[in-house]
Amino acid sequence: MKNFTCVHDVTNIDSLIETALAAKKHPLAHNHVGKGKTIGLVFMNPSLRTRLSTQRAAQNLGMNVISVNVSADGWALEFQDGVVMNGGKSEHIKDAAAMLGLYCDVVAVRCFPSLSNREQDYSELILNQFVRYAGVPVVSMESATRHPLQSLADLITIESFKNTSKPKIVLTWAPHVKPLPQAVANSFAEWVLSSGYQLTIAHPPGYALCSHFAPGATIVSNQQEAIDTADFVYVKNWSSYEHYGEIPAVSGDWMLTTDRLNAAGNPYVMHCLPVRRGVEIADSVIDSPQSLVLQQATNRIYAAQAVLQTILI
Amino acid sequence: MKNFTCVHDVTNIDSLIETALAAKKHPLAHNHVGKGKTIGLVFMNPSLRTRLSTQRAAQNLGMNVISVNVSADGWALEFQDGVVMNGGKSEHIKDAAAMLGLYCDVVAVRCFPSLSNREQDYSELILNQFVRYAGVPVVSMESATRHPLQSLADLITIESFKNTSKPKIVLTWAPHVKPLPQAVANSFAEWVLSSGYQLTIAHPPGYALCSHFAPGATIVSNQQEAIDTADFVYVKNWSSYEHYGEIPAVSGDWMLTTDRLNAAGNPYVMHCLPVRRGVEIADSVIDSPQSLVLQQATNRIYAAQAVLQTILI
Amino acid sequence: MKNFTCVHDVTNIDSLIETALAAKKHPLAHNHVGKGKTIGLVFMNPSLRTRLSTQRAAQNLGMNVISVNVSADGWALEFQDGVVMNGGKSEHIKDAAAMLGLYCDVVAVRCFPSLSNREQDYSELILNQFVRYAGVPVVSMESATRHPLQSLADLITIESFKNTSKPKIVLTWAPHVKPLPQAVANSFAEWVLSSGYQLTIAHPPGYALCSHFAPGATIVSNQQEAIDTADFVYVKNWSSYEHYGEIPAVSGDWMLTTDRLNAAGNPYVMHCLPVRRGVEIADSVIDSPQSLVLQQATNRIYAAQAVLQTILI
Repeated sequence: MKNFTCVHDVTNIDSLIETALAAKKHPLAHNHVGKGKTIGLVFMNPSLRTRLSTQRAAQNLGMNVISVNVSADGWALEFQDGVVMNGGKSEHIKDAAAMLGLYCDVVAVRCFPSLSNREQDYSELILNQFVRYAGVPVVSMESATRHPLQSLADLITIESFKNTSKPKIVLTWAPHVKPLPQAVANSFAEWVLSSGYQLTIAHPPGYALCSHFAPGATIVSNQQEAIDTADFVYVKNWSSYEHYGEIPAVSGDWMLTTDRLNAAGNPYVMHCLPVRRGVEIADSVIDSPQSLVLQQATNRIYAAQAVLQTILI
Repeated sequence: MKNFTCVHDVTNIDSLIETALAAKKHPLAHNHVGKGKTIGLVFMNPSLRTRLSTQRAAQNLGMNVISVNVSADGWALEFQDGVVMNGGKSEHIKDAAAMLGLYCDVVAVRCFPSLSNREQDYSELILNQFVRYAGVPVVSMESATRHPLQSLADLITIESFKNTSKPKIVLTWAPHVKPLPQAVANSFAEWVLSSGYQLTIAHPPGYALCSHFAPGATIVSNQQEAIDTADFVYVKNWSSYEHYGEIPAVSGDWMLTTDRLNAAGNPYVMHCLPVRRGVEIADSVIDSPQSLVLQQATNRIYAAQAVLQTILI
Repeated sequence: MKNFTCVHDVTNIDSLIETALAAKKHPLAHNHVGKGKTIGLVFMNPSLRTRLSTQRAAQNLGMNVISVNVSADGWALEFQDGVVMNGGKSEHIKDAAAMLGLYCDVVAVRCFPSLSNREQDYSELILNQFVRYAGVPVVSMESATRHPLQSLADLITIESFKNTSKPKIVLTWAPHVKPLPQAVANSFAEWVLSSGYQLTIAHPPGYALCSHFAPGATIVSNQQEAIDTADFVYVKNWSSYEHYGEIPAVSGDWMLTTDRLNAAGNPYVMHCLPVRRGVEIADSVIDSPQSLVLQQATNRIYAAQAVLQTILI
């Protein structure tokens, strides 16, 4: 594996999950793989879980870690080629990414979408410029359209809790207070479908995901109906892809509640966190035994560790 | 020792001081205790001394360190239970603290008081939520009402410089330019009294500390009189507990000067730093041989190291 | 070598370059030199290249690294002696630097000039206060008037690419969009001349460097003429020293272009980065085989590593 930017970079998902589960059992078993090597964690946006879990994963492998908050520690970067740089951007990604590649053996990047320029966001301009110019493996810590470390952690979690080889998996939209990227939803759909699972996606009108990410998924517009026979319900807000970055008004109640869960077959509930309690999901659901959110969070370490180990070996 | 949030978490103060003094002699003697373990330093407020000394202590024990400035690196946290999270707070402490506990073997937290809501500050809402939800040992790097790593360093310093088994210790209020927490003063009083020393506290009217922290201390309102036969004078500003967070006008001169020290028996002078030179203490005092401020700062490393070592073993 | 603040701190430049080139061949050959030791990287200003390359160098030597963004992580420092600290500065450099020296074995500092108070900037008030009070070796990561780690990396690069023992070296001013320090230019001139090379400096009227840094350099006001027989052309913007910090209007074209390079003998082109593409240098030049900018960036690691190794041994 050269880079880790989406599921298509992975040769064998099952084998990556196995590597992660082995790392979870014996976190320090390969702590010489990264000796003398450095990972650069480049944050263009805020991060807590990803920051900590990726750092822990790297340290479990014996790597040194350098974290950089680009705008706070440095300056604004230019991502367009061929421009006269006489504005507010102090350095071109060509030079910044190349520099990161000179100083780090692996470069991990978090770069959120603008939510205003759909074409640019969905071209993954920023992540692709890092890949193009870094000259070393690049790992996405969430980009404009995907969050593959989260999706891998989600699949590890499903693998650990499924009671049948083909569990019924549902991804449902949920309310939020501000426009969020589609990245987690896109990526979850892509990984679930690439793993050969069936996926149902429930969302209100106006919130269809880009069709590219969920070929073959069943789309419904009723949350209760969607989760009725589900084994796993993945809850996530996202803003509109069609009316890009907007949050069209929604009718009906889309917060996942205990009543709704009880009315279904008591499926496991998943969320990538951070979660707006009482908005996306009821407190009573998140704190119930059916909630896998902390297992997902734990698996973030081993998802990152499996990816880094695969890249380094 | 499970957590380290105040003196009452410590089984044996003398033994903790001995551990610190041993660490000071041989800082790397236990550098395998923390191998493969990670401490998360969580800053909700600025920190230089605490940030560096705790990191150094952890590294002396072989631990990996992850530092997080919560608001700059991440987002605002919600500390109240059961609220509908439709405002500016992106993640509940329940989830954030649990996540920190999943990724770190020890979680150290700095969380200052609001200085506006006394009841909430003195309930230690924030620190207690970390303790409640982290699931791993929590170390206070200064909370709303206490600064125990500082107090332990102070006691180590007194232990090293005392010429009598029962030195006379004075804590005196000093001027400042803005309202400061009572944490350092509360905590110093609590640790000194718990160690069996006698304590005199000098402060102007309106600046009485919460009685909970200084049972049995002698309270006076004249600085010169207080320090007259003192062996150690601890200088510190704090805002009013009674008129919570306010800074009532003060008459008389409360800056510690060379004249005043000479008029007393030339006691040692202590301060936790940062210090406002020429406001809290005269330059000539801080730079004199009687000043122990750099010894206190040095002992911050070994206070943290003793605490972490005790927690890890 | 006690400190590393300018070329005059170096006993033997050639030997330092040799140490750097050896480190480049075998980066981990001395990874026990720094075991149990800590370097504090203190940033009073933004930094990407210096932050990462110095951290990588320290980690190659086995050192622990603590990075501090002074204003974001802590608070404003007072650098003037004897003042009553009743304003916005929370801690005196006397106390802050001493503290850093207690917690770190080496203190590295980045402190840019004000560009408004020439006398204070050129007295190196801030860097010198760190040197005075830290009590441990201090390394400049760019100060008000010099950037010696960059200059050392530049000389390592010249050493690797020169085809003659006495290459013709040119430093040329180039346009920018805002006032920049003179530090890189001052420092490059100082190191080149101290190494026994001849140096030509080309700049428009009003942009003469402080004469102290370039004794014996040839000064010209025509870029094309300057680079005509050059082996190395170092491109850099700086603001006026005479009209301190100002950017007097410039006539003629000072951006380095492919046409101009072709008209000269196709010299190597150097720049410390970040570079304003299309303003200081044309894209086609930076991306050409004659550009050494990435080699310079790479050598930043080994410059820092040679300096730290020399200090530690």
